[in-house]
Amino acid sequence: MSKEIVDILLTNGYLVTMNSQMALYPNGSVAIKDNVIVAVGATADLEATYEANTVIDCQNCIISPGLINAHTHAAMNLLRGLADDLRLDVWLYGYMMPVEREFVDHGFCYTGSLLACAEMIRSGVTTFCDMYYNEAEVARATVKAGMRGVLGQTILIFPSPDATSYDESLEYCRNFIKEWHHHPLIIPAVAPHAPYTSTPDMLEACVALATEFDVPLHTHIAETALEQENSTAQHGTTVVPWLEKNNLFKAKVIAAHCVHLEESEMRTMQLANAGVAHCPSSNLKLASGVAPIQKMIDLGLHVGIGTDGAASNNDLDMFEETRLAAFLQKGIFHDPTMLPAKKAWAAATIEGARALHIDQLTGSLEVGKRADIAIITANHTHQWPHFTRDAEGVYARLVYATKATDVRDVLVDGKLLMRNRKLLTLDEPRLLKDAEKISKRIDAFLTAREGNILSKLLAITADFVPQETFEIQAKVELPQTTSLATIVANLGLEMFRASIRDQYDTYFIFADKEAGRLRYREDEIKNEHGELKETFYTMTLMGPAVEKDFANSIVLTRARYMASARHSLRFYREYFHPKTVQEIIKHRQRCHVRYHDTEFSLNLDQIADKTYLEIKSRTWSAKDATHKAELIGELLKGIGK
Amino acid sequence: MSKEIVDILLTNGYLVTMNSQMALYPNGSVAIKDNVIVAVGATADLEATYEANTVIDCQNCIISPGLINAHTHAAMNLLRGLADDLRLDVWLYGYMMPVEREFVDHGFCYTGSLLACAEMIRSGVTTFCDMYYNEAEVARATVKAGMRGVLGQTILIFPSPDATSYDESLEYCRNFIKEWHHHPLIIPAVAPHAPYTSTPDMLEACVALATEFDVPLHTHIAETALEQENSTAQHGTTVVPWLEKNNLFKAKVIAAHCVHLEESEMRTMQLANAGVAHCPSSNLKLASGVAPIQKMIDLGLHVGIGTDGAASNNDLDMFEETRLAAFLQKGIFHDPTMLPAKKAWAAATIEGARALHIDQLTGSLEVGKRADIAIITANHTHQWPHFTRDAEGVYARLVYATKATDVRDVLVDGKLLMRNRKLLTLDEPRLLKDAEKISKRIDAFLTAREGNILSKLLAITADFVPQETFEIQAKVELPQTTSLATIVANLGLEMFRASIRDQYDTYFIFADKEAGRLRYREDEIKNEHGELKETFYTMTLMGPAVEKDFANSIVLTRARYMASARHSLRFYREYFHPKTVQEIIKHRQRCHVRYHDTEFSLNLDQIADKTYLEIKSRTWSAKDATHKAELIGELLKGIGK
Repeated sequence: MSKEIVDILLTNGYLVTMNSQMALYPNGSVAIKDNVIVAVGATADLEATYEANTVIDCQNCIISPGLINAHTHAAMNLLRGLADDLRLDVWLYGYMMPVEREFVDHGFCYTGSLLACAEMIRSGVTTFCDMYYNEAEVARATVKAGMRGVLGQTILIFPSPDATSYDESLEYCRNFIKEWHHHPLIIPAVAPHAPYTSTPDMLEACVALATEFDVPLHTHIAETALEQENSTAQHGTTVVPWLEKNNLFKAKVIAAHCVHLEESEMRTMQLANAGVAHCPSSNLKLASGVAPIQKMIDLGLHVGIGTDGAASNNDLDMFEETRLAAFLQKGIFHDPTMLPAKKAWAAATIEGARALHIDQLTGSLEVGKRADIAIITANHTHQWPHFTRDAEGVYARLVYATKATDVRDVLVDGKLLMRNRKLLTLDEPRLLKDAEKISKRIDAFLTAREGNILSKLLAITADFVPQETFEIQAKVELPQTTSLATIVANLGLEMFRASIRDQYDTYFIFADKEAGRLRYREDEIKNEHGELKETFYTMTLMGPAVEKDFANSIVLTRARYMASARHSLRFYREYFHPKTVQEIIKHRQRCHVRYHDTEFSLNLDQIADKTYLEIKSRTWSAKDATHKAELIGELLKGIGK
Repeated sequence: MSKEIVDILLTNGYLVTMNSQMALYPNGSVAIKDNVIVAVGATADLEATYEANTVIDCQNCIISPGLINAHTHAAMNLLRGLADDLRLDVWLYGYMMPVEREFVDHGFCYTGSLLACAEMIRSGVTTFCDMYYNEAEVARATVKAGMRGVLGQTILIFPSPDATSYDESLEYCRNFIKEWHHHPLIIPAVAPHAPYTSTPDMLEACVALATEFDVPLHTHIAETALEQENSTAQHGTTVVPWLEKNNLFKAKVIAAHCVHLEESEMRTMQLANAGVAHCPSSNLKLASGVAPIQKMIDLGLHVGIGTDGAASNNDLDMFEETRLAAFLQKGIFHDPTMLPAKKAWAAATIEGARALHIDQLTGSLEVGKRADIAIITANHTHQWPHFTRDAEGVYARLVYATKATDVRDVLVDGKLLMRNRKLLTLDEPRLLKDAEKISKRIDAFLTAREGNILSKLLAITADFVPQETFEIQAKVELPQTTSLATIVANLGLEMFRASIRDQYDTYFIFADKEAGRLRYREDEIKNEHGELKETFYTMTLMGPAVEKDFANSIVLTRARYMASARHSLRFYREYFHPKTVQEIIKHRQRCHVRYHDTEFSLNLDQIADKTYLEIKSRTWSAKDATHKAELIGELLKGIGK
């Protein structure tokens, strides 16, 4: 009897099917024709039935469904190691956003995604779920690499690297879906970035687009505790009920992170068949916390595992993530029986496919599904020895003792992408060179920026161009009993625009004196009764030194930047890394006076137990400065100094 | 001018010295003569000064101090994957201890340690700190592999695989220290297992031995919250003060785990210069928790990182541990700036050396220290691209993006142990075969044991050989109003040994009916006022079926095992994995009677709203059983049944 001809026969492997019975074949085989699995079973049976053009002997290997990376931003591989160990806001507003604004274009997205695909194939990933910009470029890269991708075009209410408004992104996304949604490897998706970067209108349009084409909707949900707090403050409810009210769950949702969900939110998502993408490394590294995924699984949610982007991980190693996922449930929720290896491997494969709404295509080794397969060497020293008493020990071997680099061969859609650890679809050395070209430009940009406090300031206030300001000023100590009203009266002048305030100044002082000093100021303006009227925050970059000395402690100073401070003092301190920090608290009485037609501001400052008077005026030329210095000299004489 | 001749010159690497200035040389070099580093610096400088017999080009590599695995049980590599996802007691008493009791001998310790050394060298570890049995065998393996080892002979109050008492272990340890303490690679140590397996006498002897030879003392401290609770209950204080009272910290202590230390305990340890070995994977996997090591570091403690044994990890991958250590501090203590990459790499190298009290020898690349070095490829796809803006980015590359398999070459004590990922001191294929021989025996032992409920029971009660017991018994339903006193009086008998108790029975029922049923019984014995007098727990393995039926529901039953239950119901449930569990609660009035010179026990049981009478007697022969069945028949008649 003649045998049926197939394209590829994998033989003699320890076959882990991840099918509904979780069937295992200690000596198993898979037959592949075109892009589909046509048979799964014992090697002897399949060898008796099939003849293949290519036979791959998998002795000493595990044959498993390829891993599914349920959440990443592939192109961000180009930002790996750019900035680490920073608080989320410093990382995001200080580094990621300025660099993305400057560098994220078609080439960046294509090359970055190729780099990510190379890394993922090497670690046994066959499908990934992406969210980024210029997603058509990500699709081109994914197809070039031969991987399967659920690719979400980012939509958010702020201008982004690929759109000035969300209408533009939606339009791009519509075209992207139309172009790609029949491709055998690509599942396009709509990716509203997060609840806190959405409006109800925007969400409505995203859901409409996703349902029109029946594509998934990929978003971030409840990544941080702050997100939940803000949602509650703003909408009177946590994130999921707000999203449900805005009909988000009418789409096939893929929700990344879900670190801070209440049980009721999990139930809402379960009823809506929303998938969860758990990203343990990223959630730890950015200090977001640990998602209670065992609980989600117990409630019936489909939970996959994702690496998140390489900028916050810093790799796309699903073996690491899967092991970490298992470890964290046990260690953080105090029960070593939680997320056992078998369930963890399911999360990395079939449950990931379910979370991405593509389990009809992939996630397990079953007849009729696409041939997305990882062949993983299992007899390396670090995996040795093996115990056969419990057949399911193979899951512990995979999750707890196997490394990404143990993956030997990878097939996606019936096509070999890696064989004996050599990539077959990508020119890796050239890819690294292409990536380096971009990274070198980023490096140069940041090096220039970091070398200079002003440019570092500008990087986080992109819409603001500051001007230098010069002031001529004098500062003298006065007896403590002095009042500003008396001083002005004694000078025979009239005060106007008088105010009282407490000022909390923090000076950042840098090793390089020439760099200047940064001042973060909190101004608490009081009313006449001493009650707080308003608070405002300013950031000032002060010149490194006095520009010119006049007589009587009168000096010309320069401020190179002054603007309201949008971030917290902590943000600026961590972003600028000053060598030392100095704090000064003053109680300030302030007024303006006119003297010989020139306006001066007078500040009477109480600092600790001393009293100082400052007389100041803005200036714009050397001649004007000299003239004003003379006038200040006269005023000083008038008060006896 | 002629150059100085050295043995080995490492050139052109990114040199990470981990010296006190944390000096970095982007193109750096190390010169090695004999077993010592003779120069560290820029490649151009060293090439101008030295000529070497062996020059190793480290282009595209990082040259770092070798990693220091601060806590492991090397030989337990032979138990990797034996039992996973279990609670600590099930894992320990159900699997580890029975297997260790049976298999841990000289050959096990030698081969297991060699296997561990092979894995550790492959992942860049140059020094490890061990605690196990037959430690001289571990030393032989360590020297064979060429690694550096701080090797602690275990001492504990229970019989162990290598000693029947702690006196024996102490004697072994003394000889072990004498034999090895001048060896260039071995630092012998005294290893009292843990506070809860020590007595003050034993600790005193351990400290005396460690101080006599000035060797470290390696122990487990505060691994679990339970350990702290028990210590407080038993000694009125947490673990560290109790150990301090017993003078433990007079020795050079290396304390593994330290998950549940109070701040005062950290301060005590810091003052005593005790080192800490943080084992994040093991602490998560066994659900112990996360040690607050950033806090310990802030208090001045030296914290190294350890893998723990492969039975609870399941690998010895220090890259994984180091990354995890950094991630956990951030994620669990809510601050992404905690344990930044530079500090994490320090913990894996120089701080590890300090924790082990051997920083005069190793842990950094400095002139005069031993040449213990890892050369790590840094331009793989998963490590790409590189940014040079911040020279310290190299630490993030090492900690967050580099894998154990990126280690290219390893030197210990000036000798190459791995070159281009090939082990030079060990015959790896043969080693795997040797390990397999042992693992197959363990596998067969456990397979046999697991196939049989009785042998599985015996494995956890090694000091007890049960006997089969046969009982002849009848059980009849009676009206609810019946009292035992009335029944006995009506029969014209006298009751003795009467008691009242509540019984909570849990039956484990297995898929295989022939396996029998297990009963876990909690007996609450009441006094005449119905107050709780005492509670006891028994575990009974009941025969699969009734052995013989007599008339009138009189049956002969067989119990194959009955003993007091030392573990919790939860333990047994998780250890035996029954298919179903059935719970029965009864209120039992019990007494004994003598009828025709034969003793019977009578149980009047209230179960839910029904009342049953049991009449029972032990039996030992078919003839005796028939006779007693007849007597029971007469008694039943006497009560109208």
